[in-house]
Amino acid sequence: MASPTCVMKFGEKGGATGYLVGQENRGLATMFVMMNAARLGVGIQGVGVAECATQRALAYAKERRQGKSFAANGPPGMSPIIEHADVRRMLLTMKALTQAARMICFATAREHDIGHRAADEKTRQAALSRAALLTPLAKAFSTDIANEVASLGVQVHGGMGFVEETGAAQYLRDARILPIYEGTNGIQAIDLVTRKLPLDGGATVTAYLAELAEIIGNVRASNRPEFGHMPERLTQALTGLQTATLWMAMTLQSAPEAALASATPFLRLMSLTAGGAYLAKGALAEDPASPRVAIARFYAENILPEAESLAEAVQSGADSVLVDAHGAVFA
Amino acid sequence: MASPTCVMKFGEKGGATGYLVGQENRGLATMFVMMNAARLGVGIQGVGVAECATQRALAYAKERRQGKSFAANGPPGMSPIIEHADVRRMLLTMKALTQAARMICFATAREHDIGHRAADEKTRQAALSRAALLTPLAKAFSTDIANEVASLGVQVHGGMGFVEETGAAQYLRDARILPIYEGTNGIQAIDLVTRKLPLDGGATVTAYLAELAEIIGNVRASNRPEFGHMPERLTQALTGLQTATLWMAMTLQSAPEAALASATPFLRLMSLTAGGAYLAKGALAEDPASPRVAIARFYAENILPEAESLAEAVQSGADSVLVDAHGAVFA
Repeated sequence: MASPTCVMKFGEKGGATGYLVGQENRGLATMFVMMNAARLGVGIQGVGVAECATQRALAYAKERRQGKSFAANGPPGMSPIIEHADVRRMLLTMKALTQAARMICFATAREHDIGHRAADEKTRQAALSRAALLTPLAKAFSTDIANEVASLGVQVHGGMGFVEETGAAQYLRDARILPIYEGTNGIQAIDLVTRKLPLDGGATVTAYLAELAEIIGNVRASNRPEFGHMPERLTQALTGLQTATLWMAMTLQSAPEAALASATPFLRLMSLTAGGAYLAKGALAEDPASPRVAIARFYAENILPEAESLAEAVQSGADSVLVDAHGAVFA
Repeated sequence: MASPTCVMKFGEKGGATGYLVGQENRGLATMFVMMNAARLGVGIQGVGVAECATQRALAYAKERRQGKSFAANGPPGMSPIIEHADVRRMLLTMKALTQAARMICFATAREHDIGHRAADEKTRQAALSRAALLTPLAKAFSTDIANEVASLGVQVHGGMGFVEETGAAQYLRDARILPIYEGTNGIQAIDLVTRKLPLDGGATVTAYLAELAEIIGNVRASNRPEFGHMPERLTQALTGLQTATLWMAMTLQSAPEAALASATPFLRLMSLTAGGAYLAKGALAEDPASPRVAIARFYAENILPEAESLAEAVQSGADSVLVDAHGAVFA
């Protein structure tokens, strides 16, 4: 992964030549052909940066020794930092967020493929609507977590992460453009709320929530002890998402500016819940000792609780975003 | 604010001269005289970077025009981006987190002063214990939010934030060292849990929680409608903190590695709750239309809900951090 983002100046030496792409006065519409595909592409870029940051931090944490861990019962001397609980928490967070974002991107790509290749027109249409619904999640969530993961990668490296030798800081710099370009993540959230939730009269999002509920029902029914608190955390997140989606549907009509004020936490809530469901679906297909089970459980118990908070913020936070409409706070 | 952090090499041209500071073989103890003061100093550095990033983003958001906001009813043309709800959410988050961190740092500094200047020995001792309890919060929370706030500052600037002209990116680079040096934020969390919670047999933290409870009781009793959901959000956060503190006290004895695994979310939980209580205490002294009321309410309704999630993660997340003690996940 690398990011060639830079400032470019055209026309300094005697002018630059412009070429018309598509029809005259149809520039924005023409650009959006590129843009819609690019949004998923940027999401994948986020997954790529996050994956690289994770691999590099993991390798460093196995090599770098400092202090003596609880687990240490081998030869004398200091432990590799991967044995310290707080470092494990960071590495597991990196792995779990990266995997959740990857699965959201793959789910989006799959719907694109079905939407273009399925024999049946109705199947194609449903898939294209699903892809449209998931695209803002794929773009915004993946690039937000790319920054969180790359920042954790710097932290795992300690002082060696801040200086340049390890490459950890470069991932964070590369990640930082991703929530900005191809439509900022704020724009993605507004797109999700104002254009994607109302798709097909709400049928697209309703069918998606039903699919997540089915996965979570299967997790509950499996009664697998190695899942720990995964079933209840998934259920809490889904309940929060369902309630917040209903709030959004009503608020879009009654107080559209409030819906916009809560769009960003809503996008995060939907992404976290979807990611948790996908990880759990993967875990259901595995043996108890599988790393996929461990990651899904870690995600459910340590990351997914955020969904409840987000559901509260979506439903009762908008007024205090807007309360100062002309106000003293920004004086 | 600026950070002169760099790599330095000594002794390349014929050797460097070392000087003994303090007694021989007492280097670490000697260094900690500097280190304890430095931790609060680094927390203040975090507040400073966050404040600069906020001021710069606010100025840019008032000037930069894009799209048409709901509030727009003035002259034709595009609105300053500060009028868009999602941008307001970012700016309010920046202001609220910065102010919460500042109040935690000031509370810590106040206890230091009392601890060194009070006439009464008992008062001095209690203040020094309180200062010791709050120092890891002042260092870790302030520097974590410095990164969150500086990153939001880049986002408010859009593409202009990623390139160098605006200075927004420099704040993020300056902020990134702060969670690393003078004891990483992971070390601060471990210090809080293993050394500070047990101070004076638990009396220090118990007295502190009682003080937060008193503030929150006053907020509830005030019945001020402009506080919105502030009373209930503060109460939920305090309940989460009380429960998680008890869990920590018991787990430190029964399963110390699990306490270490939950140390980082515990530090965040305690900091968020303390910050919310301090903001509310300030709001209680103000008129309904005061910006301090607006910020305290925004914080309670949009940021503080995270406390509940953290309390869940502290109490039921540790097992999945440790489950893979020798494991496949990191293979």
